[in-house]
Amino acid sequence: MSAGTLPLLNLVLHEPEIPNNTGNIGRTALVLGCSLHLIGPLGFDTSDKACRRAGLDYWPRLGVKHHDSWASFHAEQSPSRLWFFSAHARRSVFDAEFQRGDWLVFGKETAGLPESILRAAPPDSCLRFPMVEGERGLNLATAVCAAAYEGVRQFSARGEIRIDERGVILP
Amino acid sequence: MSAGTLPLLNLVLHEPEIPNNTGNIGRTALVLGCSLHLIGPLGFDTSDKACRRAGLDYWPRLGVKHHDSWASFHAEQSPSRLWFFSAHARRSVFDAEFQRGDWLVFGKETAGLPESILRAAPPDSCLRFPMVEGERGLNLATAVCAAAYEGVRQFSARGEIRIDERGVILP
Repeated sequence: MSAGTLPLLNLVLHEPEIPNNTGNIGRTALVLGCSLHLIGPLGFDTSDKACRRAGLDYWPRLGVKHHDSWASFHAEQSPSRLWFFSAHARRSVFDAEFQRGDWLVFGKETAGLPESILRAAPPDSCLRFPMVEGERGLNLATAVCAAAYEGVRQFSARGEIRIDERGVILP
Repeated sequence: MSAGTLPLLNLVLHEPEIPNNTGNIGRTALVLGCSLHLIGPLGFDTSDKACRRAGLDYWPRLGVKHHDSWASFHAEQSPSRLWFFSAHARRSVFDAEFQRGDWLVFGKETAGLPESILRAAPPDSCLRFPMVEGERGLNLATAVCAAAYEGVRQFSARGEIRIDERGVILP
């Protein structure tokens, strides 16, 4: 993405616990021109050394942003259009209309987003993925990728981003 | 999924190498009512004992099907509508029209699908995900999840599957 271009989407992970998932979501962010925000406390180390050890060669290019808390994330970013992903939400992700620069917020692997955040969210901004009943939920990294691509699909369908004949998203 | 129901989609992994990815894709298959086919040789052990050790408690419910080779997969399954995912394909996954029971075929993590399979595939059946140029590709498990949900989105938009008010895909 060229400097100064609005990120297509902003991916926000609230207190993620599993480093492999965050690494994987970083890869999705990079290939889709999205920003990645991590809200602490984190369950792992994201130092340069730890990322090198984990083979995350692309990590430095991501420019991931760290925030100490949900409150400081808000204070630092003033996010305007937020979407909250939760298995308890009633609205399907496919019924949402995403706009460029929207913020997609995901909770931790074991517990999802805390009630305090979900209660304060407008109900229409809480989204879930349709699923067969009685099974475990999706892995966090796969859910983030599917959500981000639903945004890209909508932007492309509405002609808001250009994708060349090789399938490359143009800046 | 109730017994005898057509899987929404059939997910096919050709010679997968990384057990975490296959485990993660199994989870996607389960929550989406998809079947999972693994075409060998595999780079890991999928015995009951190995899956228990890896915490894949849901694995036995998947009924994953193993095939020794691409040829035996064809002989055993006679798949009719196949889609091949490749970073070298020209057609976007969002331009494909998926039907229930379609087969989504993904190659190994390090090398993708072999030329021998891609050369024999109709060009319109080869799909890619739009991406920003110059970056690594997507993780296999995240790409499979995004592709499967694009199918579910289409089935839902065309009224071919029912999703109740809680977001549950009905059998």
